[in-house]
Amino acid sequence: MKGFAMLKIGQTGWIEKEKPKAGPLDAIVAPLAIAPCTSDVHTVYSGAIGERSNLILGHEAVGKIVEVGSEVKDFKPGDRVVVPAITPDWRSVEVQNGVPAQHSKGLLTGWQFSNYKDGVFAEYFHVNDADMNLALMPDSMSLEQAVMLPDMVTTGFHGAELADVQYGATVCVIGIGPVGLMAVAASTMRGAGRLFAVGSRAKCVAVAKEYGATDIVNYKQGDIVAQVLEATKGKGVDHVIIAGGGEDVLAQAVNMVKPGGSIGNINYFGEGDSLPVPRLAWGCGMAHKAIRAGLCPGGRGRMERLISLIVHGRLDPSKLVSHRLQGLQGVEKGLALMKDKPADVIKPVVLV
Amino acid sequence: MKGFAMLKIGQTGWIEKEKPKAGPLDAIVAPLAIAPCTSDVHTVYSGAIGERSNLILGHEAVGKIVEVGSEVKDFKPGDRVVVPAITPDWRSVEVQNGVPAQHSKGLLTGWQFSNYKDGVFAEYFHVNDADMNLALMPDSMSLEQAVMLPDMVTTGFHGAELADVQYGATVCVIGIGPVGLMAVAASTMRGAGRLFAVGSRAKCVAVAKEYGATDIVNYKQGDIVAQVLEATKGKGVDHVIIAGGGEDVLAQAVNMVKPGGSIGNINYFGEGDSLPVPRLAWGCGMAHKAIRAGLCPGGRGRMERLISLIVHGRLDPSKLVSHRLQGLQGVEKGLALMKDKPADVIKPVVLV
Amino acid sequence: MKGFAMLKIGQTGWIEKEKPKAGPLDAIVAPLAIAPCTSDVHTVYSGAIGERSNLILGHEAVGKIVEVGSEVKDFKPGDRVVVPAITPDWRSVEVQNGVPAQHSKGLLTGWQFSNYKDGVFAEYFHVNDADMNLALMPDSMSLEQAVMLPDMVTTGFHGAELADVQYGATVCVIGIGPVGLMAVAASTMRGAGRLFAVGSRAKCVAVAKEYGATDIVNYKQGDIVAQVLEATKGKGVDHVIIAGGGEDVLAQAVNMVKPGGSIGNINYFGEGDSLPVPRLAWGCGMAHKAIRAGLCPGGRGRMERLISLIVHGRLDPSKLVSHRLQGLQGVEKGLALMKDKPADVIKPVVLV
Amino acid sequence: MKGFAMLKIGQTGWIEKEKPKAGPLDAIVAPLAIAPCTSDVHTVYSGAIGERSNLILGHEAVGKIVEVGSEVKDFKPGDRVVVPAITPDWRSVEVQNGVPAQHSKGLLTGWQFSNYKDGVFAEYFHVNDADMNLALMPDSMSLEQAVMLPDMVTTGFHGAELADVQYGATVCVIGIGPVGLMAVAASTMRGAGRLFAVGSRAKCVAVAKEYGATDIVNYKQGDIVAQVLEATKGKGVDHVIIAGGGEDVLAQAVNMVKPGGSIGNINYFGEGDSLPVPRLAWGCGMAHKAIRAGLCPGGRGRMERLISLIVHGRLDPSKLVSHRLQGLQGVEKGLALMKDKPADVIKPVVLV
Repeated sequence: MKGFAMLKIGQTGWIEKEKPKAGPLDAIVAPLAIAPCTSDVHTVYSGAIGERSNLILGHEAVGKIVEVGSEVKDFKPGDRVVVPAITPDWRSVEVQNGVPAQHSKGLLTGWQFSNYKDGVFAEYFHVNDADMNLALMPDSMSLEQAVMLPDMVTTGFHGAELADVQYGATVCVIGIGPVGLMAVAASTMRGAGRLFAVGSRAKCVAVAKEYGATDIVNYKQGDIVAQVLEATKGKGVDHVIIAGGGEDVLAQAVNMVKPGGSIGNINYFGEGDSLPVPRLAWGCGMAHKAIRAGLCPGGRGRMERLISLIVHGRLDPSKLVSHRLQGLQGVEKGLALMKDKPADVIKPVVLV
Repeated sequence: MKGFAMLKIGQTGWIEKEKPKAGPLDAIVAPLAIAPCTSDVHTVYSGAIGERSNLILGHEAVGKIVEVGSEVKDFKPGDRVVVPAITPDWRSVEVQNGVPAQHSKGLLTGWQFSNYKDGVFAEYFHVNDADMNLALMPDSMSLEQAVMLPDMVTTGFHGAELADVQYGATVCVIGIGPVGLMAVAASTMRGAGRLFAVGSRAKCVAVAKEYGATDIVNYKQGDIVAQVLEATKGKGVDHVIIAGGGEDVLAQAVNMVKPGGSIGNINYFGEGDSLPVPRLAWGCGMAHKAIRAGLCPGGRGRMERLISLIVHGRLDPSKLVSHRLQGLQGVEKGLALMKDKPADVIKPVVLV
Repeated sequence: MKGFAMLKIGQTGWIEKEKPKAGPLDAIVAPLAIAPCTSDVHTVYSGAIGERSNLILGHEAVGKIVEVGSEVKDFKPGDRVVVPAITPDWRSVEVQNGVPAQHSKGLLTGWQFSNYKDGVFAEYFHVNDADMNLALMPDSMSLEQAVMLPDMVTTGFHGAELADVQYGATVCVIGIGPVGLMAVAASTMRGAGRLFAVGSRAKCVAVAKEYGATDIVNYKQGDIVAQVLEATKGKGVDHVIIAGGGEDVLAQAVNMVKPGGSIGNINYFGEGDSLPVPRLAWGCGMAHKAIRAGLCPGGRGRMERLISLIVHGRLDPSKLVSHRLQGLQGVEKGLALMKDKPADVIKPVVLV
Repeated sequence: MKGFAMLKIGQTGWIEKEKPKAGPLDAIVAPLAIAPCTSDVHTVYSGAIGERSNLILGHEAVGKIVEVGSEVKDFKPGDRVVVPAITPDWRSVEVQNGVPAQHSKGLLTGWQFSNYKDGVFAEYFHVNDADMNLALMPDSMSLEQAVMLPDMVTTGFHGAELADVQYGATVCVIGIGPVGLMAVAASTMRGAGRLFAVGSRAKCVAVAKEYGATDIVNYKQGDIVAQVLEATKGKGVDHVIIAGGGEDVLAQAVNMVKPGGSIGNINYFGEGDSLPVPRLAWGCGMAHKAIRAGLCPGGRGRMERLISLIVHGRLDPSKLVSHRLQGLQGVEKGLALMKDKPADVIKPVVLV
């Protein structure tokens, strides 16, 4: 079968591989829609997760099941399914002890596609533990909506969970790429009152407002911490969600959050040795500014709950989709769009 | 001054009282808008809190400050303010230990208006600890919106907090009077997916849908537990918010919630000795069906956060207002409306 | 093989059955020590879970593995293991959504031994998903200590978790049978200050004091609520753990807990249609007296964490063991002891 | 009156000041026992909180009330009281919104003694809001025990709260000065299983073991992260409490905690611009390693709950007291002990 792969750091290309096979609990899926992600760009061009050779890229997909293992109970060939980017091994003592399944076998091990095994940019891909990691895609949902669920929606929503947004709280979402936009929507849907969104691109700003941002902070117009503090009369915000930014963004978050406030990070930090926490703004270690950070939840239950939000009209993630490409080969252009980020791109989708 | 009072159990009337005086931390407020509540009906006609003599009724008001005590720092005469129904004494060791301020000096003691002291259905009323219990009313908010905050909004929203509604969860709100309708809005704003609302009156049903209900359960069409279980294929719901019902409603909630689910009660149970929890549905005491129940939060911070929801366009509670009455004397008719509940009433407001 | 079984409601006896076989993930274990439980008495003599025919009893055991399935990775024949009473199916969408694994396939379905399948009072017994449900028994632990873990320790400790005991809080544990005694130990180990224990038998009282009870409340000397309220100057306690009692014990707990306090139930309610919650003491539904109730956690991670408490000298559950019986046949006398409860019995152990 | 003061950065001395006066809610206290703290050393010799002129030092005291304001209800002259180091203003909208009272009027503003106002190393000192900030000292408690409560005990215990230690978890406490030793005791009292304590001084190591440490990690014998990882077979620990260390200790904590684990910081970071979080060990921002950090809780309720632990025999903090000095003037030598830290010092107490 054909797949679009990372050949080595800095280089992509189409390769031929054997069609994967399903173990007793697994499924083989043919993609109906896929989406390239900024993290694919990091993986290939920054070598963020280290060298990989002929690894098929991609972790965002919806598809049609073509094969299931002998022990799969709830799915059958022909079913249309949402495939989360994170497909943990759910049988784990660590999970029993409260560790999120994203790390069920160690740090970040729930992230398998285009990391530990071939990804979804192929004619077929393999899903471990189908009954636990796939979710049926309702007919009432469009492919474009559905393919935002595996990563963009679950990650953005996890930001609001990590920041623990409360009714009427003042929130700042730093970064309004597609994940940040979903964090805006998620904050709104958890009861945020005033909601700052930090970004500059006109298209993203417009969508941020649609998803509930009340104030836009443009980093091109000055220090974002200063802007947020000025707008809040020096008080700062109750919650910060970090959905973009460089090594200094954690410091910015600590600087703009109130004592007793909380920071949720869903940004993938791709560079640098460490992220500095500013000592004084952190109250010399005594400010009660909590910092939580984590990989997005995957698995079936999570997808089903997010599907419920779409099916019941609570959320329409298709506003993220700025470009539609046709056919598997479109993924090559899609990835280029995520790499070059022209002004009009939020998220490209490839309809296979 | 003139006030509309409970003369004794079963009897109301207009009385004359001395205008209240402000202690050092207090304020005297003249109402701009007030609203009668079902609990006023309970107080007068069921004797739910026991005998009271010439007690001015009412605990839902927005008004204009006419006097402040010498130690009040953040408010001055002329300020328009939202006055929460619950005005606790915030200096309390119990509160330090985590007890909600509603019980800062003992069970339900934060509920002062029309319970321990004269209420707001008067030309003037007294507010303890103004800096901690009043909130400025922004000009962008209507009186009708504002007067829903002191009780209806904060109570309904507390229901979703007590039930701890999560993204994409299936929720059932039992009772869609004004508080239940706010519980519907609050569940939507905390990320509910499918949302059952139990009620029958056409007007309430219509507003429930506007606030986010996806399924209406009419108790006139059969047992509500059976209806909810059938609609969920026997699984039940993740969270139940009890916002109405009689002695058996707690049992209904336990019967329809999943193992591991949670129940939030904001219903005021006015009658009966006890509320039965069904043994088998509660897993013989082992089902992990949590039951939380509590009086609505009051105080300034709560009001300010709820105001933020209105100001930023997240919530419009004025949909609750079915009747508008003019002048303080209108409260008499308003109370009658809450007592008799004609088909078209949700909540009357009296514009003073 | 030989097993001690419930023949039908009200009748026990020794039966012969085929030795169980291990599926790919399972293990077959030969018991080294077993313990009869009050719930075995309920099952047989009250018919609490309904009719059962020739069902081998028992759910508390440590043993030696005699066979493992082909997919078991972490255990091998000869390993000495602690076997939790609750052995859930961990692959469950409900668990992904936060439902405790005890209910992974529905209400109480994690309780398999002597409920849905043969129990541990036999020459051999079957354990589902060995890698997830067994824990290695360290050599430094005695069999008597170890066999308290499957139910007594995990249940008692869950009581303190459900009640969410905090540092310096005042706690009341109602019932000081072996589970209640572990709830006393668990409350002490979560930082309880003053700790009431409700019981009457001298032996249990003595052990309760050893585990940390500071005040004994004897129900034979008057109403326990009145005694607790008097001792606390009318304030009541912060947390109640229900570990025994009849239909009225939930009402007693609500009556003695403070507003804002919490109740954790680990009692198995075997009789009656419903458990009454007293309306007035529950603040007419507004008292913020939380009620949580649940089946004890099982599984490997839980056992390993509890083992850690014993190995590191934090807990010695062998104080519970009042009677030692030799040989599998001793279980018959052990069960009789739990049924008849002579004054000197806390918990019998059968060393096989 | 006489007081021992910071004259300017780097210089201390005895000064004369007017005896403070009590406002309506306040109390004036004469110390019975006081204790110098490492943070007094930081304040004077590192200038950690900036320049101060003739500020009386000290924030750890128990004493006898000599005067109360007209509105004080629960205390009277002659009462012996525990005085928490942190005495917040409890009337605060921020506190209503969930901000810890330590920051009720802004970052760290609950820390008043020897920061915003004169401290306790004087013949008399002033306590704001006596009813909310003082606790009666029971006769059954020694002065040495009592004077550990205002800071050492509450801070150490807050470490275990911030890290959210669970039953049977593996914990590492970094730093075993007096606060770290209380964090060891607090971890034990919240159910820690294996408990690493990082330190080197023989006296502290001995007391750490008495308070529950099971493993000692000596930083003089190699990298502490490497030692902890080796001892845990590469897994790391569930919770880390930081109770000492320099700028790199946060990085050490992140490096040794498991994915899904949590870090509680109670260390006062006195130097450097920022504290680095290591990117890779933090999972590139996705490891679910939560970081919480905060100033110790003060106030009456906290003191009363900690007193309960001592009165009921749960905790004996007097093991911390390595030196006893007599008379107010002894504080000068006590501070020198905390500054020079000879091998045998843990905590000096001055009996006035």
